[in-house]
Amino acid sequence: MTTSRNPIAVFDSGLGGLTVVRQLMRRLPAESIVYFGDTARVPYGIKSAETVTRFARENIEFLQTFGPKLIIAACNTASSAALPRLNGEYTVRLCGVVEPGARAAANKTRTGLVGVIGTEATIGSGCYTRCIADLNRDIKVTAKACPLLVPLVEDGRTSHDALVRMALEEYLRPLREAGVDTLVLGCTHYPLLKPGIREVMGPSVQIVDSARQTAQEAEKYLAASGELSRRDAEGRHRFFASDHPERFARLGKRFLGRPMGSVRLVQPELLDGRLALRVFEEN
Amino acid sequence: MTTSRNPIAVFDSGLGGLTVVRQLMRRLPAESIVYFGDTARVPYGIKSAETVTRFARENIEFLQTFGPKLIIAACNTASSAALPRLNGEYTVRLCGVVEPGARAAANKTRTGLVGVIGTEATIGSGCYTRCIADLNRDIKVTAKACPLLVPLVEDGRTSHDALVRMALEEYLRPLREAGVDTLVLGCTHYPLLKPGIREVMGPSVQIVDSARQTAQEAEKYLAASGELSRRDAEGRHRFFASDHPERFARLGKRFLGRPMGSVRLVQPELLDGRLALRVFEEN
Repeated sequence: MTTSRNPIAVFDSGLGGLTVVRQLMRRLPAESIVYFGDTARVPYGIKSAETVTRFARENIEFLQTFGPKLIIAACNTASSAALPRLNGEYTVRLCGVVEPGARAAANKTRTGLVGVIGTEATIGSGCYTRCIADLNRDIKVTAKACPLLVPLVEDGRTSHDALVRMALEEYLRPLREAGVDTLVLGCTHYPLLKPGIREVMGPSVQIVDSARQTAQEAEKYLAASGELSRRDAEGRHRFFASDHPERFARLGKRFLGRPMGSVRLVQPELLDGRLALRVFEEN
Repeated sequence: MTTSRNPIAVFDSGLGGLTVVRQLMRRLPAESIVYFGDTARVPYGIKSAETVTRFARENIEFLQTFGPKLIIAACNTASSAALPRLNGEYTVRLCGVVEPGARAAANKTRTGLVGVIGTEATIGSGCYTRCIADLNRDIKVTAKACPLLVPLVEDGRTSHDALVRMALEEYLRPLREAGVDTLVLGCTHYPLLKPGIREVMGPSVQIVDSARQTAQEAEKYLAASGELSRRDAEGRHRFFASDHPERFARLGKRFLGRPMGSVRLVQPELLDGRLALRVFEEN
């Protein structure tokens, strides 16, 4: 059984999920967080559901060794491709970023015209379209895969960059033409391009950032299950990556909005139970 | 001991190495080829030398089960980051794509000003600069990492695409300013962007395509070791990928210049000896 002092575990293919951690830190400063970024196998968004499920399972098994009270797949690709298959396999609560984003979009839209952008895998899975339709059949969803935005963000480029700007113009054109009034950022990397996205879409379009929604829902879940940390507790934050830990710490600052201290190297697919336990004990 | 009928094995992080296979098929139609593309872990170019070495070792161990007479790392990142460490570990001849490209550039340049473009890992390793300096100390090398070109090519974009064009203008500017007369395509994906690269660099700059050079050197090596197949033999070509085999076959046609038939799914890091053997026996 988990107690309120157990950490929240978060994983992503790389840096993107740190936008969720940032929101968690803001809302829940007393919570401890363990983060794993799978930088050795990034990106997930161009890979098959089977492969992403295998990666997610290995990541979850590593994070399980920290005894988390909640595991968040802070990655739209893993949320859409892997969570539906993995949810029955674990007793710990697994939550993703798709449903919170879909719920927020369904609540916010006034015209019933919603846009979603994400990786090839996320958009190809149809998860947002399905999830929004389950909430309200009258909403029309226009979804667009933007496969180059993750490499652009991972390359350290921002909204001011000419290549980013040109990519956004190309990708967002069909959403503007569809006249959406609400746009879901269906990839945890995209909040870093919010200024550019806002500029291309125009001021009347509402942007739904699933990182923020996910942190909100995590808080609600922990409050309901009585597992929130005591307010005067001090959260401990631990970061792991499967490759380039220094690069991860350096680029991660932008995502997290603050320095992250040291990042430890770990390869979940190479860990057996004992090794994983050692990683846990050392931390 | 290998005989002339054993295959040539080739691996890459994904599709890029097929440009080497294309040249091998052209020069050596009687040779059998086994290709492995690590599409589950693509790209390698943004990853650390340690991680790329681990991936390369797993790929080589899988390819060993086919009893190859030669293994080609048809990937500049793996050639530069992993081969120097792995060369002592195996009895089979391992060869990369860096030395053939460097030799061709050193031979071709008239002004002694050579440019090299490649992934972050390849350029960061300094392998081309070192290798060219070993051949001729008077040559000045200007090297430039182009991290977005692999994602652009893997996205199916060509030289006509506006984003590709803008990326090329940005990346090639310092090479034009350095006045290079020879440019090495230090990544096996880049031959697919040759028309655009040629246009941006201008007609006076010679382009060195390491895929072509590598196939030439493979032929020389096999001729010298007496392991070339008989000319009337018919080469058998087998393709494996660690993810998305159908997508690999579909996009691979562009790299190979012909259809590739069926592609089989395999995960080298999950194979133990027996499983690998089974894969071998079934093929």
